[in-house]
Amino acid sequence: MVDTAQRPTTPTTSTDASVDTGPIKIAGDPSAPAVDLPTLNRQLLGTWADVRLAARELTARPEMQRIEGLSMDEHRSRVFGQLKVLADLGHVHRAYPKHLGGQDDQGGNIAAFEELVTADPSLQIKGGVQWGLFGAAVLHLGTKPHHDAWLPDIMSLKIPGAFAMTEIGHGSDVASIGTTATFDSETDEFAIHTPFRAAWKDYLGNAAKDGVAAVVFAQLITRGVNHGVHAFYVPIRGEDGAFLPGVGGEDDGLKGGLNGIDNGRLHFTNVRIPRTSLLNRYGNVDADGTYTSSIDSPGRRFFTMLGTLVQGRVSLDGAATQASALALTIAITYGGQRRQFTAGSETDEEVVLDYQRHQRRLLPRLATTYAQTFAHDEFLVTFDKVFSGKADTDDDRQDLETLAAVLKPLSTWHALDTLQEAREACGGAGFMAANRLVGLRADLDVYATFEGDNNVLLQLVAKRLLTDYSKKFASADVGALARYVVQQAADRAYHGTGLRTLAQAARDFGSTARSVGQLRDTNVQRQLLTDRVETMIADVAGKLRSANKLPRKQAADLFNSHQNELIEAARAHGQLLQWEAFTRAVETTDDAGTRQVLTWLRDLFGLGLVEKNLAWYLIHGRLSAQRAQSVTAYIDRLIARLRPHAQDLVDAFGYTQEHLRAPIASGIELERQNEAREYYRKLRDSGTAPVQEKAVKAVKAVKAK
Amino acid sequence: MVDTAQRPTTPTTSTDASVDTGPIKIAGDPSAPAVDLPTLNRQLLGTWADVRLAARELTARPEMQRIEGLSMDEHRSRVFGQLKVLADLGHVHRAYPKHLGGQDDQGGNIAAFEELVTADPSLQIKGGVQWGLFGAAVLHLGTKPHHDAWLPDIMSLKIPGAFAMTEIGHGSDVASIGTTATFDSETDEFAIHTPFRAAWKDYLGNAAKDGVAAVVFAQLITRGVNHGVHAFYVPIRGEDGAFLPGVGGEDDGLKGGLNGIDNGRLHFTNVRIPRTSLLNRYGNVDADGTYTSSIDSPGRRFFTMLGTLVQGRVSLDGAATQASALALTIAITYGGQRRQFTAGSETDEEVVLDYQRHQRRLLPRLATTYAQTFAHDEFLVTFDKVFSGKADTDDDRQDLETLAAVLKPLSTWHALDTLQEAREACGGAGFMAANRLVGLRADLDVYATFEGDNNVLLQLVAKRLLTDYSKKFASADVGALARYVVQQAADRAYHGTGLRTLAQAARDFGSTARSVGQLRDTNVQRQLLTDRVETMIADVAGKLRSANKLPRKQAADLFNSHQNELIEAARAHGQLLQWEAFTRAVETTDDAGTRQVLTWLRDLFGLGLVEKNLAWYLIHGRLSAQRAQSVTAYIDRLIARLRPHAQDLVDAFGYTQEHLRAPIASGIELERQNEAREYYRKLRDSGTAPVQEKAVKAVKAVKAK
Repeated sequence: MVDTAQRPTTPTTSTDASVDTGPIKIAGDPSAPAVDLPTLNRQLLGTWADVRLAARELTARPEMQRIEGLSMDEHRSRVFGQLKVLADLGHVHRAYPKHLGGQDDQGGNIAAFEELVTADPSLQIKGGVQWGLFGAAVLHLGTKPHHDAWLPDIMSLKIPGAFAMTEIGHGSDVASIGTTATFDSETDEFAIHTPFRAAWKDYLGNAAKDGVAAVVFAQLITRGVNHGVHAFYVPIRGEDGAFLPGVGGEDDGLKGGLNGIDNGRLHFTNVRIPRTSLLNRYGNVDADGTYTSSIDSPGRRFFTMLGTLVQGRVSLDGAATQASALALTIAITYGGQRRQFTAGSETDEEVVLDYQRHQRRLLPRLATTYAQTFAHDEFLVTFDKVFSGKADTDDDRQDLETLAAVLKPLSTWHALDTLQEAREACGGAGFMAANRLVGLRADLDVYATFEGDNNVLLQLVAKRLLTDYSKKFASADVGALARYVVQQAADRAYHGTGLRTLAQAARDFGSTARSVGQLRDTNVQRQLLTDRVETMIADVAGKLRSANKLPRKQAADLFNSHQNELIEAARAHGQLLQWEAFTRAVETTDDAGTRQVLTWLRDLFGLGLVEKNLAWYLIHGRLSAQRAQSVTAYIDRLIARLRPHAQDLVDAFGYTQEHLRAPIASGIELERQNEAREYYRKLRDSGTAPVQEKAVKAVKAVKAK
Repeated sequence: MVDTAQRPTTPTTSTDASVDTGPIKIAGDPSAPAVDLPTLNRQLLGTWADVRLAARELTARPEMQRIEGLSMDEHRSRVFGQLKVLADLGHVHRAYPKHLGGQDDQGGNIAAFEELVTADPSLQIKGGVQWGLFGAAVLHLGTKPHHDAWLPDIMSLKIPGAFAMTEIGHGSDVASIGTTATFDSETDEFAIHTPFRAAWKDYLGNAAKDGVAAVVFAQLITRGVNHGVHAFYVPIRGEDGAFLPGVGGEDDGLKGGLNGIDNGRLHFTNVRIPRTSLLNRYGNVDADGTYTSSIDSPGRRFFTMLGTLVQGRVSLDGAATQASALALTIAITYGGQRRQFTAGSETDEEVVLDYQRHQRRLLPRLATTYAQTFAHDEFLVTFDKVFSGKADTDDDRQDLETLAAVLKPLSTWHALDTLQEAREACGGAGFMAANRLVGLRADLDVYATFEGDNNVLLQLVAKRLLTDYSKKFASADVGALARYVVQQAADRAYHGTGLRTLAQAARDFGSTARSVGQLRDTNVQRQLLTDRVETMIADVAGKLRSANKLPRKQAADLFNSHQNELIEAARAHGQLLQWEAFTRAVETTDDAGTRQVLTWLRDLFGLGLVEKNLAWYLIHGRLSAQRAQSVTAYIDRLIARLRPHAQDLVDAFGYTQEHLRAPIASGIELERQNEAREYYRKLRDSGTAPVQEKAVKAVKAVKAK
């Protein structure tokens, strides 16, 4: 095993790792493949690399960064001040229309925005509330008069605002919120009203302190008909900072993290707003109370409105992936320098990253983080195409929704898992706030349940997969099913996000994956992963077939009895999408050494998924017992092969010390280790070192004989 | 499924759930088994039930509890003040000798101590530093003059002290610490010295602020011989609070949690202490520098010294289990009241705990928490016997060490996992500090790596299992091995903690576990779990057999290439020990209903372990593919069966609102849900409810025909 402990670590001042780090050959074996760092760094930065690099110059500035240990009030004030800097720089305006000073740049906006997570997740999320939710709701749900009236002040932060959707009683089920907006044609006003305690709006950023307005989601009622949830622009505080008449609220107080954001509750007692404050892009009320909408189906209208706000999920996927990359950069850098216990030598302690268990803890998570990084870039491209109008067919929008619903859960859970493993892998040092891991974990905790609860989102994905399945096979007889051809090429089936299908022949490859060599084969991995999703969905679809004929309660019970399986199928589908993105990235890597290392990492990701679900492959006859064992053995070999490249693979993320800001990843551990080793070397050389009691006893024992 | 939402929740004022809660029959099915709450509560409280109940009266007092949002300094001051209360009450003196005002009660001391976690984990751990580490080191490593000189003031908190073992450079590998204590016969003193930066003591509670003395672990050097790590009593601060000459240090500052404790670093520059400040129970230095010890082997002496400090791990196992129980009480109570989405009805939303996924998230973790609770009580009994001298043979001590090394990792990881799942299961409400889950998680994070890093501890256990294996089979021929009889009875093999063995016949039961009925069989579960550990250890032992003949480096590499397997085998062993304890607890439950429900819960725990490792059982031919599938199906059935008992099972832990202190578990959610449902019911009845647009459209569509 090659010792990389003496390698220079991440650069200390440059904002781009590619500047001063050339390709690195592994010591001792000049023929071994090596990563070309600048190339890989650029590849990881992705489609909006330059935007990201510019954003990283901003996040490298101390005044934009979190200070540990501030009180909640101090932290809130600091973040609000930082938000003004973002506004003044136009850092957060890229998605807004050019005529209002924006750039109509959807993808770049998200790329720049999600980089903020390395400065302070509170800054990221508070910015997200202001410009990604509150402002975006005015932009996407409102029309020109609304844009002209409010967007300039929203962009400049003159109007900080809350996005008042979630209520105490309804989070995931937005359609069931209790707040009402009842039209009164006599005054040409809506009355915004909170009918009971569970209908209080809750967990709203900007609600506790800074917000002077809110986009309030409420059931639109006119002429005795409830047209479902719509958004309304509602001023909530006067210039004195006090609530306006009829508006009330509470501070949510301290949270598990993100305490730079002033989350709070709001309630409304028949608050009157002009009819024109309805954000009326998808539904309008005339002066006489007549409701009209360009979308006839209330259900479709609701989901279209919600769909315009998908960018929150896009940015959480990116930010969570960045936090994972940062955590692994810290833990792998430290693990490559830290020594503990002698094993192979009397005097030299082992570098902890040379322990198999330590590698098993960190390298598979690194592989997943790479998969997510590549998948996220494709996700962002899809988002950009849809929101810029370059490609926004129903299929495109559905792909975007599916990606959002499946990638956000996987990456936000992965971030929590990775931050925790990295923290533990750094021992007590990992628990110190100064080393950042605990703070990031605390802040990212809520990413798993806001902007769509992860389990609820995965269930949505599962329902889409069931629909795809029934569309494809509803009327197909068995023969048609068997003839259904596997789509191997890079056609729409692989770029889209729907259910993949394999030819019957491919589904039998349990008998073909007989050697370790085959496990390395891209198509074998693709088949193993694809087959599992398809079969899981087909299994559940078969079990649910009778649901249509059952009374509502029994149908619900039947569905519920397979809920866990369905959510696991959705997870498997998301992992397949990530694997596909990783594979496409490997295929576009030109440098041979980088490509080889990335292929190993992709294999580790793919086979890691197979290993996690090995029982499934065995039960369904896809792998023999012998082959199943070789999966684990091959993963062990991959991990050992990747170990010498671990530092390169994290350095390639391109974070500098200004982004890491973790003393244990600064090289200080290597300095301390070297100082201690030098001390003992000199002591041994001096001849004055105390003798170990054990050695004295051994000498005595020999003499006694 | 029985709706338990209308059930009264945990009592609001009593400190004992058994006081006002009688046995509860499940509504609708009088013949269904029911838990007898008072009995189960008492069983969960365990051997030191009365001590725990008294401790819970203390932890129910607001002045002993954590206040969220304090600054680090305020929190530290508060906890120090609470420590004085503990000292004044004698709450923390049970383990100390009677003649000094203690009670010589080892088990009761830990039971009372670990209950403090529900008040504030900082209070628990800071108390642990003072009386469980610093004071306990003086007690167990010192001798009578030390006891007389320092214990009274340590007990009263007049001498707050640090336990200065860990160094920046060495945590897990204590034997390699760098601090030296060199004896100088001319002055009859030891010089305590920190030779380099990595040898600074670090992460020490009481070091940053409160400590006036420390027990410092250092390499004892006299007459040119290093006798290994010993403990020394070293004053560190004067009456003015400043460091004494030669002593220096730093504040660790903010941590991921436990910020009520003033962790810090210490270093020593030839600090002189009298020879008699060596805590000399296991090793002494005469005035002329001669070293003597009652334990000849330096290795054994070192482990004996460390062994006297095992109580830290005992109490972490208990505290982590309590935190898990608390988290599940909060999440299950809330989950049984919270409603989201309609499914089986047009108007009534589902209680979230009725969703299969929600049950899958919480009930298996409840089963594990039960297993841990019972295993912990037995662990505590073992600890009490050894430390009271009632039973402290080498075997007893080894059992204790093994239990500590295997249970502490499992329960501390389980607590983090459970606190996180509970937090997510409560959605945004779970992220509010007021609902406690995030704060407890942050505090308990470090339990996974302090008092022995979890992975390192499990590796220790694996080494013991390998030793057990080689002892049993080293000289056994195949015939002897086959005759090795399974020890089914409650003999030493089941009460001890070493490697279990099955008869060859039992090892073939893959072919016998043919029905779901058999999965329910206690002995089948025992065999499945036992066989896995034994086979895993036997496999690795076979692969390591050649290590003895290899050069050191190659032997280390060979061992390292199986490190992950070994640690997983140790985990499996710990889970088996927990399952055995759960099974013994079920067997001693007299009430038939309680016993039935506990049996289901035990089955859920046992089969859950099988399900997690299903691939292993398939690969090794222990379960057929068909049988493997029925494991999951049976778990689904168990979970559905346990659902109606979920509230009872958490209420049985006996926490009151004073311990939970989570508004979402107070019944407030049920009130809000009822208010909302009542509002809609009245609205429907009034005839003035707005009509849904969808309904209007449906009517129009009918009319148009």
